[in-house]
Formats: sequence, structure tokens, C-alpha cells
Amino acid sequence: MTIPLTILPANRELQVAPGTSILQAAHAAGIDITATCGGRGRCTSCRVKFVRGTVPPPTIMDELQLGSDLVREGYRLSCQCRVTEPIAVQVAPPLDEQAFQILGADRRVQDVGRVVIDAGITKQLVKVALPREEHHQTSDLEELLAAIGRGPWDVSPELLKQLPATLREAQGEVTVTTFGRSVLAAEAGDTGPMKFGLAVDIGTTSVDTALIELESGERLASVSSLNPQAVFGGDLMSRIAFAQFNPANLKKLQGRIIGLLNQHITEIVRESGVLSKWIYKVVVVGNTCMHHILLGIDPSHVGLAPYAPVLRHPLVLPARELHLKVHPEARVCLLPIVAGFVGADAVGVALATRIYESPEIRIAVDIGTNGEVVLGSRERLWACSAPAGPALEGAQIRHGMRAALGAIDRVRIEDDIQVHTIGEAAPLGICGSGIIDALAGMLDAGILDATGLIQVEDRDRLPPRLRPRVVLQGEERRFILIRQGEAGAPADITLTQQDIRQVQLAKGAIASGVAMLQHIAGVPDGQVAELLLAGGFGNYLSIRSALRIGLIPPLPAERIRYVGNAASLGAQLCLVSETERHRAEGIARGIEHVSLATHPDFQEIFVECMNFPRG
Amino acid sequence: MTIPLTILPANRELQVAPGTSILQAAHAAGIDITATCGGRGRCTSCRVKFVRGTVPPPTIMDELQLGSDLVREGYRLSCQCRVTEPIAVQVAPPLDEQAFQILGADRRVQDVGRVVIDAGITKQLVKVALPREEHHQTSDLEELLAAIGRGPWDVSPELLKQLPATLREAQGEVTVTTFGRSVLAAEAGDTGPMKFGLAVDIGTTSVDTALIELESGERLASVSSLNPQAVFGGDLMSRIAFAQFNPANLKKLQGRIIGLLNQHITEIVRESGVLSKWIYKVVVVGNTCMHHILLGIDPSHVGLAPYAPVLRHPLVLPARELHLKVHPEARVCLLPIVAGFVGADAVGVALATRIYESPEIRIAVDIGTNGEVVLGSRERLWACSAPAGPALEGAQIRHGMRAALGAIDRVRIEDDIQVHTIGEAAPLGICGSGIIDALAGMLDAGILDATGLIQVEDRDRLPPRLRPRVVLQGEERRFILIRQGEAGAPADITLTQQDIRQVQLAKGAIASGVAMLQHIAGVPDGQVAELLLAGGFGNYLSIRSALRIGLIPPLPAERIRYVGNAASLGAQLCLVSETERHRAEGIARGIEHVSLATHPDFQEIFVECMNFPRG
Repeated sequence: MTIPLTILPANRELQVAPGTSILQAAHAAGIDITATCGGRGRCTSCRVKFVRGTVPPPTIMDELQLGSDLVREGYRLSCQCRVTEPIAVQVAPPLDEQAFQILGADRRVQDVGRVVIDAGITKQLVKVALPREEHHQTSDLEELLAAIGRGPWDVSPELLKQLPATLREAQGEVTVTTFGRSVLAAEAGDTGPMKFGLAVDIGTTSVDTALIELESGERLASVSSLNPQAVFGGDLMSRIAFAQFNPANLKKLQGRIIGLLNQHITEIVRESGVLSKWIYKVVVVGNTCMHHILLGIDPSHVGLAPYAPVLRHPLVLPARELHLKVHPEARVCLLPIVAGFVGADAVGVALATRIYESPEIRIAVDIGTNGEVVLGSRERLWACSAPAGPALEGAQIRHGMRAALGAIDRVRIEDDIQVHTIGEAAPLGICGSGIIDALAGMLDAGILDATGLIQVEDRDRLPPRLRPRVVLQGEERRFILIRQGEAGAPADITLTQQDIRQVQLAKGAIASGVAMLQHIAGVPDGQVAELLLAGGFGNYLSIRSALRIGLIPPLPAERIRYVGNAASLGAQLCLVSETERHRAEGIARGIEHVSLATHPDFQEIFVECMNFPRG
Repeated sequence: MTIPLTILPANRELQVAPGTSILQAAHAAGIDITATCGGRGRCTSCRVKFVRGTVPPPTIMDELQLGSDLVREGYRLSCQCRVTEPIAVQVAPPLDEQAFQILGADRRVQDVGRVVIDAGITKQLVKVALPREEHHQTSDLEELLAAIGRGPWDVSPELLKQLPATLREAQGEVTVTTFGRSVLAAEAGDTGPMKFGLAVDIGTTSVDTALIELESGERLASVSSLNPQAVFGGDLMSRIAFAQFNPANLKKLQGRIIGLLNQHITEIVRESGVLSKWIYKVVVVGNTCMHHILLGIDPSHVGLAPYAPVLRHPLVLPARELHLKVHPEARVCLLPIVAGFVGADAVGVALATRIYESPEIRIAVDIGTNGEVVLGSRERLWACSAPAGPALEGAQIRHGMRAALGAIDRVRIEDDIQVHTIGEAAPLGICGSGIIDALAGMLDAGILDATGLIQVEDRDRLPPRLRPRVVLQGEERRFILIRQGEAGAPADITLTQQDIRQVQLAKGAIASGVAMLQHIAGVPDGQVAELLLAGGFGNYLSIRSALRIGLIPPLPAERIRYVGNAASLGAQLCLVSETERHRAEGIARGIEHVSLATHPDFQEIFVECMNFPRG
């Protein structure tokens, strides 16, 4: 016997065995219902609305996740709802894929190995005795603490505001959420499985937020966007100058980043179906200046010699103090800082690359507007900053863009140009990995010389199809990657001589950072066991191209590995594991900061690194 | 040789010896310049403005107290400023005496005896090494913490916001304020002597705030006013009902009390000249309901059997969380609670009366809208609530008022009536001590019988001048205390039959509370070594009258003592002494709560206590 199940808006009638969940039935029939949590009742993404048939009584998960209003309106979680009679349900609007970063592009905490999942957020269901006796008085809080035991506990006044109502609504059956010695929440009923966290990487140019289930370490969603502070200055120094200009400006910068994080939260909550009130832990990495601005701390002195941070300690504070729209008592953990220009992001990179326990010497290069280089092994670690500017993140490049839908992320130049775009959409611009590929191809084809000049005068020596792409427009040398109409491009996409200069500055900063650390630590190329290339390039970065343009030292390709956004991965590790978070403190203390600018050999090496290697 | 010193607006020219301070010279000449701190540069009340002569360079105290703007405008502290050449100065406007409670009315912490002054607020001047080295990075915070030593410290992100500017402005010379393991402030220069605190008593009807210098324990100012929550209900039950009615109402009640406390702070700051930023500690007592509402905690269940509080623990939280306009990191300490109707105020009374260490049995009676009785000795302590209603605080009495300027606070009835008013001003109404006096006199004169009925029918037996004061106006029996015009009164002041009934309910509640505790503890009157009468009656309460109306049991007058506002005094003790604050915790744990309403003998005793003793 089967029962008819109609699914709207597809308007497909399925015949399903009684007791099958709506989600299972839909998936078996090839109908997409998003289930971010994998159909375990942990999120709301698979919700459906009943349009025909008896709405079944809500499960505890329906109540917890959807709330009484939606339940009353006939919404249910399709993963929890079994078909027992003919029904028709409407599926929630599908996800807006474009708003989302391509998942799977980056490494996950599971890829790092030897990670103990211990996020530090503990939930326990307890039975609290309600005060009953008038003579021998007690209080709601005393009874709650007696039920959870193992005190003393630190309880926020915020929790107390809800406590009497929660206890009585649930007849004393509440789930208590703790972190360290702090009681964060007391929720009616069993909310045990709902434990989520956010890993946030605040870069000068890009901000990444990932949602992680704390119990499994699974990444459920991530979102990435430009740092909106950029309108007040593309690089740190101009943002610091803006903050110094008047005290209200610091508030503006802080407001921008907190506003963006709340947008990320709204988006992640909407897309994943996980409710923001189940997010109890947030780990933030970022460079020193971003870290200070997030906290509303004047970063002026980070911008003046000796570039001292206001603090380097790790911090833990309640989300309400930063006005983040997760659980108000969620703990926001900021990783420690090494120096004014070697921030918590570098600590995240060192942690995620496991360089601190490497028996051989490795180099981790984090490519970003304020890049950082970490060199060393389990014996000793050095770090310096490599202020590349935003070119390799696609900013301050005429047709540059972030690694998002429609960005050219791969370029091959032979007889003509071949490009690949993210999502295989019509090309809208070029992102960092595409720029590196393009320059490598231009060098190989002789379109660029080693000094970085676009060879307009010699273009006649190029293959016929490349020749017309090398142009002089007024005074400006240009290379036309894509003409309007090619591959559906709505407009020309070019690289200008100015763009090339920006990339040269960027790669010069990074390459000279690597060279200087090798110089100071006395490590020739031959002693480098591995170079780990990190940065937010999405799921593609050509090692060959990076070598060709001299972004990294000329090591054999098999000793170079692209490790994705390692700063964010470091944050994710600390999110799912307190062991890792405490390890990060030790790593930060152990890193020796190297100040490049004051070193007598720096200028010469930097100028040299600006040029491209001769083919 | 003397130098001419002109003081405006008095326009007196004094001849003073060179080097005399302006304040000294003025006081010697009988010119009043207020100096709340006693001329020690701790406050701003003695500030003068130079109108003629050279303005001397500011002292460090001028800079600290007045700030650079006022200093630039020619303001100086007259206690710090010595006369060296002919000058003329304008004195700050004198204090508005009326706004102020009469100081000296209440006992001070110095009167309690054996109080160790250790407010827990520590200030130390340190020299912080500013970060200088680029290679070996450190941070402002690390250098600050190294300078104060003895870590680990807990530092608020708020402090960090100011830290880099403060450190550099003061070239590293900063005063660090700590409380326990928390660093509250880092201020440029030596601010060591500036350490103040507030003791707050939040009653159902009245709210009292006292400003205390933490180093000396000296009370500098106090202010008292009606609890503005009263518009939402005069007694606790109606306020609880209001809070339950809808969740926004709790916010309203909380907003009212926080608003009032901020008014008190503004007033105290203005009158005393102490800057609010030097206030680092606040101790709050109040009944359980007031305590919960201040914190924004739903008090619903305090109003329902078994009347359980949400919490009873003592709390310490930063002032910014309650939006109090003192130093944002000031610590607000809430004393612990005993039971739903025996609050932190009762703990304050027990502490201030030293009943917990008495070798003999004593009784402390706190008279207020929600009065409390504590009975016992160092062996054992019992407490119960005595919900008197607001009559004895002058509220819900037709011509009742608080113990403020113009209130009739003493009444003598012989051949005629004699009244005394606070400040000897024209009578505006009658306060608690006046009401108790009036009723005692009316009973003695035969104007009231033992059941509380005004004897209109028998008025002809009264002395001729009293006779016309006993009237029947429509249905209403009245006793005219003061006629319009008498002693300058702008209107009649009467006590109505209804007023008498209110006082009977009040004194019945208190007397039955005392009687019940004696009954339960098995303590006959003969075993009571002393009865301590507490409450906000100003500086006068007639023990004889209190005995006459049966407010307290018939003990010999020498065994009864009026101890003023002991709840506030308890708060003051905990403000100036952490030893006392920790003692309060032990006291709260040790008090045994007695629930009267459920006791089988209560009704009978209560009804009996409503009547007046027969003369």
C-alpha cells in the first residue's frame, strides 16, 4: 500500500510507503529539498507548509525550531514529518545559490587531522525542583545551580530575566548551556542537539564567516564579502588615519564591521535554517588593526612606530557586548595577536598549517591585503608582515573582483586566450587566481617583460590572435582578456599597465617577506621542506603560475601546496576545539616577530622582488 | 604686608597674608564658600572664577577636577589657590539647600563602631613603560599589567578603548583603579585621592542615595525622593501585577528606577562637586521585588506562593550594564536576599544594628511600606516581613508627605496643638513621625478611641481649643491639625478617619510581625534586651508616641532605640568595607525566614494589633 504525497511548487504526486518522511520521499524522487543539517532536525531549511490533508501534531523539533507561530500556521520540518495519509505540502523557497560561497572550496577542520572536537559548549538536560516551601526559602537560581552541580558558576543577569518563566513553562525540565564556568542559557525542554558556532576571518579587504555544527565539526554554510570599511580606505594605514581624524570615525569603522557580521549572520541563518539563538560560540581572527577596530579600540598607535598593539591577549566576551545577533550570551573568542602587523590571522594560519609541530622547516604564506609570512618548525617560528595591498584579492584592479560567481579564476594563454569562470557563468571580472594565471601566461607569451612592461611595441611577434589584444589606448598600455560578447561577457575585461604595477607591488611584498625571513633565519631554498600557500582564492590557485610570476621562491612544485583560507580554518579549529584555542595562545607567544622595514638589507631585496623572474 | 582679595558676588574686599588660600581667607572672614570635601581638592564645590588679577597656573587638582576647559576659562579650586597678588574672584553659585536632605539626621558608618575601612577600591600610581622596540613586540596592556603586577587581572574592553591615548598623554604616569581582580580604570596623572561611592536604598515608597568618600568613610551628601514606580502601584503586589500585565511594563518599572538613580547621581554630583567619574563603587539594598526590577528580572513569582525569589546570591556588576551614570566600570554590588519578602534591605538592617553579634536577644524593626522584623542574637536570627503599606512614609495619607522641608515632624496635643516642621518652614503636610505623634496625642486627649474612631460625638468633652478641630465633613470624620494661615500654612492640614485606618493597618502589620516572631521564637517581652526602631523618619521619631499607638511592644522606653535608616546604613557599611559586605553574605545565609500568613495564630494576632492600646 502506498499513500499519495503531493509536493508543491513542483506539483509532483509521489506514491510513498506509510511512515516515510516527507524529506526522504522527496529526495528519493529527485525533488530537491534543502536539508542543511542532513535531515536531523537541527535546522529549519527543510520546512514545508501543509496545504492539504491533516497537519500532524508538531514534534518537539518542530516546536523548538519553528516556534509556535509557524507551527500554528501549518509549517513542519519535512525530515521529522512522516506520511500517514494523503497530503500536499509546499516546500520553502529554494536557496538563493548566488548569495552563497561555493562550499567545499576550502579545507574543513576534518581535513586537518588529529582535531579533538571539544568546542567547550556543553548542554545538559536537567530537572530543576521548583521552589515549593514558603518557610525554607530558596530561589529559582539556587535550584537551577543545584541541578547542574559542579559550581561555582558565573550567571549573567540576562539569563535571570527569562529564568522564572522558562522554568515554569517547562515544569523544571530545562537544557542548560555552559561554557567554562559560565552559564549561558537555560532553555525549556531538550535542546541538546542544537549547538552551533561561527568562525569569522576579518581581513582588510574580505570578510569570511562560516557556520559550524559544534558537535560534529561539520561546516554547514559560509559567506564571504568585501569589508565595507574599504570605503574609508583600502589599506590599513589610510583606515588608521581616518580613525585618527576624529573620534566618531572609529565608531563608524566599528559600526561597519559589526553591521557586516550581522548581515552575514542573517544570511547564514536564512540559508542554513539554523536559528541564531542556537549559535553559542564565535571565534574571530583578523589582523591587529581589524581586531582593535572590532573592539572599538583606537588603532592609532598600531600605525606609528614601534607599531605596538593595545593588547595581544586572547579575549572572550559576550556577544551582546559587540551587539552580534547570535545568542546574546554566546562567547566571542578573539585569538591572540603577535605584533602590530602580525595579527590573530597569522596565529590562525600557523595553527591550521601545523607548522608549529613540523620537524622540518616550512613556510606558510598568507596572501592578503595585509599578508603574513610564518617560517620555521617545531624548534622555532619567525613571522613578518607582507603588506601586499588588495590587488591579489581583485581590488584596486580595473576589472578585478572577488572569487565569486562570474569571476575569471583561470587563464591559459597559448595561441589565444582561454578562460574559466567561477560557476561557469558569463565573465564579469577577474579574481586573484585569474590575475596570477594571466600574468604568468603574459610572461610566457612575451606580452610582459621581466620589468613588467606590456610589450605594445613588440606585439607583432605575437601569435595572430593575441596580437590585437595588446593595445595602447591613449597613453595606457592594456591587455584585453575578454572582449565584450566573448563567452557572453557584458563588457571588455582588460588588464592595464597600472594593474600590472599593482600586482608587482603585491607579489614584491610577499616574495620579499619570504626572502627576508629565509635570510634572517638562514634557510636557503634547499632547506625548505614545504611552502604552504594560503589565502582566499576560492578552490583554485595555480602553483605553476605563482612560481612563474615569482610570488613564491623557486622551489620544486611538489614542495608547494595551496592550503586555502588557512586563517579562517584556524578560526574554525578553535571554534570546534578548545584544545586548539588554547594551543593558539602558546603559538602566539612562541612566534618571533621580525620587523622588515628597519632591516638594512630590506630595500634591496624588495626592489629585486618587484621584477618578474626571467622565463 | 597683606594683599587685597575681592570676593564676588558678596563684593567684600579682604586683606590677606600672602600664601593664604582663597578658601581659608573667605572662611576666616565669615564668607561661605561650600567645600564639601573639607578643602582637600577632592571635589569641585569651592571653585571660583578669576575676574581680576593674574590667573595662577593650574595645580594638578585643578586640572583633574575642573578639566582643561574650565581651567582655560579662569576657574580654580579656591582651596588649592594661594593669594600672591591682588585678585578678585567670583564664587560658584551657592548650594540649593532645599533640594538636599538634612545631613546629620542619620547615623554614619563611624557611629557603628569597629568598622574596618576597606572599600576594596584600590588606586595606585604607576609608571608604565611605553612600547619602544619594533622587533620584540609588546602591547600597551601588557606594559600596564606589568607595572601594576600581582596578576592575573580582568580588564574590560572599555578600558582598552582609552588606554593608548591615556598612556601617551600622561607619558606613562597613570593611576590604576582596581576592585578585586578587575582593573576598572587607568587615568592620566595622580588621581589617588579621588575615590567615592554611593549607598542606595530602594524602598517601595522612598529611595535614598548617599555619597561617601571611600578613603575616610565620610558621608558627603545624601538625597532622598519618592520611588517614581509608585504611579504604577503603591504597594508591591500592584506593581507585580502591573509587571505581569505585559512584558513592556517591567521595562517601564526598571526605567523609572534607573532614571531616578541617575537623577540622584546628577543632583549629588552637582551639589557635592564630586565628579561622577570618581564614583567607582555602588552598594544597593532594597526589598526582593525592587532588587529584581532594578535588574530587569520578572518579579511575577515573588508575588505568588511560595513567593520564591529568582535569585538570592549577592551580585556584582559593572555600572554600564545598569546604565548608571557613574564611572562605567564602577562596580554595583547588590546585597543578598533572604526570601521573597525579606530582602537585601533586611540584611542591611541586620548588619547595621549588629544584631547578629548580640549576646542578648534584640529585635530590629524596619518601618517602611514593606517593613521587616529581625529578631534574635548571635545564636540565631529569625526574620519576617511586615507589609505596612506606605502610610508611615506619609503616602496614601490625605495631607501626608515625606520627611522634607515643611513637613510636620512633631506634634504635641495638650490644650491645643503645637507642631514642629522640618527646617522650621511653613507647614506643607505631615510626615511619618508627625503622624505617629499626632495619633498618640489624639489617643491621650480622647479624640481617638482604642478602635481608632475619631470621637466627633464626644468632642464637647475636649479642651475648648481642640473642640472645633474635630469635625464631621459630610460623612467624613476629620481632625484638623493646622488651619490655613496658622503658622503660615498655605492650606488646611487634616487627618481623616481614612488616614487613621491606614495607620492602623500599618502599625498592625508591624506590631503583629514583632509579636509573631516573639511567639515563634518563644521570647516574651521581658527577654528582649533592646528593640531597635529603623526607618527613614529623618532625625526625629518619638519612642513615647510609637509605644502609645502600639507600633511596638510595651517595653520600657530605655530598652527602645531609634536607629535611623538602618537599611541605608547597612549599604553604607558595605560600601566602605568589603569585610562588612562579606559579613552580609553570612548574615543572609544565617537568617531563618518565617512566613506569617500561613501560621494558624496569625489572623488573631493581626486583628488584635490593629487596635490601639488602652491609655
